[in-house]
Amino acid sequence: MTAIAADADFAAWMSSVQARVEATLERSLPGARQAPARLHAAMRYATLGGGKRVRPLLAFAAGELAGADSSRVEVVACAVEMIHAYSLVHDDMPCMDNDVLRRGKPTLHVEYDEATALLVGDALQTLAFQLIAERRLSDDPAAHMEMVRLLAVACGSRGMAGGQAIDLEATGKALSQAELEHMHVRKTGALISAAVKLGAMCGGPCPPALEQYAHRIGLAFQVVDDVLDAEASTATLGKTAGKDSRQGKPTYVSALGGARARAYAEELRRDAHQALAQFGADALRLRQLADFIVLRKF
Amino acid sequence: MTAIAADADFAAWMSSVQARVEATLERSLPGARQAPARLHAAMRYATLGGGKRVRPLLAFAAGELAGADSSRVEVVACAVEMIHAYSLVHDDMPCMDNDVLRRGKPTLHVEYDEATALLVGDALQTLAFQLIAERRLSDDPAAHMEMVRLLAVACGSRGMAGGQAIDLEATGKALSQAELEHMHVRKTGALISAAVKLGAMCGGPCPPALEQYAHRIGLAFQVVDDVLDAEASTATLGKTAGKDSRQGKPTYVSALGGARARAYAEELRRDAHQALAQFGADALRLRQLADFIVLRKF
Repeated sequence: MTAIAADADFAAWMSSVQARVEATLERSLPGARQAPARLHAAMRYATLGGGKRVRPLLAFAAGELAGADSSRVEVVACAVEMIHAYSLVHDDMPCMDNDVLRRGKPTLHVEYDEATALLVGDALQTLAFQLIAERRLSDDPAAHMEMVRLLAVACGSRGMAGGQAIDLEATGKALSQAELEHMHVRKTGALISAAVKLGAMCGGPCPPALEQYAHRIGLAFQVVDDVLDAEASTATLGKTAGKDSRQGKPTYVSALGGARARAYAEELRRDAHQALAQFGADALRLRQLADFIVLRKF
Repeated sequence: MTAIAADADFAAWMSSVQARVEATLERSLPGARQAPARLHAAMRYATLGGGKRVRPLLAFAAGELAGADSSRVEVVACAVEMIHAYSLVHDDMPCMDNDVLRRGKPTLHVEYDEATALLVGDALQTLAFQLIAERRLSDDPAAHMEMVRLLAVACGSRGMAGGQAIDLEATGKALSQAELEHMHVRKTGALISAAVKLGAMCGGPCPPALEQYAHRIGLAFQVVDDVLDAEASTATLGKTAGKDSRQGKPTYVSALGGARARAYAEELRRDAHQALAQFGADALRLRQLADFIVLRKF
């Protein structure tokens, strides 16, 4: 396949997964007219019609590698995306990052109100666990329960929520690269890893090499996020650019400088590819996603 | 047994369950020195050392009826209490009820800050699901997964979080008794029912009569809460009294008047007892708890 044909093939795969995720989210969220209607409409606003769906793409790519039934993978992909959406709604609130723009639209507390934003986040988190629990996701009941536990650990106080707490305390401080890593492995890395592992577990036990891949691209995702926040425009990102430095947040750019941050992302991309070496052609999508995550411009 | 001896026996049982719940929560929450330390200390502040532990008491009483292993029941009791604690932390925040006193102490966002309160609620919800997932709670794996699902449904947008959303929209409006019921079945009833059902499910399938009992006492709990808010003092309650009428919240007292609200609670207590008739002496604790919930003064 030529490079251009490969790109087109990857783009088509991404579009098809994104469309499927959108349709599954649409079906899994309560209808906007179902009571309490305002809450349900706001949950849909927070979740539908936007975002790159990086975590669902990773779940599908890992599921393909593991030979998983895609009707299972779409469930874990949507659960993880709901957790991600909840975290964005809460992070954007005035008491946290106080942001007004997300995915090119007003943030939820701006479009609705703060109380609704609080409840939307709460209810999206719950719905993610409900989805995981009510569908048969593994032939092995113990592995299915392990998927619930794994998602909980990934987004709890030693995962995503904990990373956010570290982030709050770090604002205004200079962190070393090791300290940044400690924060981001939790804040963004934990849920990205969960997406990969849960996707794979729909097919069977998650191979250890896939966990290494997930760890690398979780970090790479954040490094690139920091670079884009510093270098891209608000219009390109669909969220407020330049926010980190204005808010005094330590980032890979503030710790390493832009050039070394980009080089570090590149190193993580290579490591991610290396972790996939044993899988050969089966890991095509995961390789392409590592490239997409590091080379993206938005 | 004389009435006084029965009271003393019930009081001793309550104390022993409360102590056991406290010890299990203590063990299940991350240590206050474990990173991120501020978040973990705040999670403990929100959960430990206070409250009547009504939901855990119900779980233990239902577990006793079902012949469940108490080492299983303590897990579901603590998970439900963590969900309850998270809901209090979020409900007290300035964008919701904006309260400063809870269980006789400053509310979490007053003692810490709003961002921490947001994350504490988020992380306590997650930890509840983690607890339920990581312990063996049923001999039947499908029943265990059903317990995860049941907890999620109880606290999601068609349960507790949905009830809170209805409450927000109802402020300043006069609701009929049926509308109040619709709200409270979700806002407080769903989690109270979940406590009863999950406790029973640690022993086997939940008998339908127990669901009826749970529905009645869930409502009775809220009716009495409304009466106490109107009639008791802040010092007695350990939370701000008289808040409902000041905030223009529709309550059973505003809908029915104090005397009819008390009579309704009494009717629900009788119905709850009736639902237990088939269980004979095995339902002693559940009967005593129905009495406690309706006759309490705080």
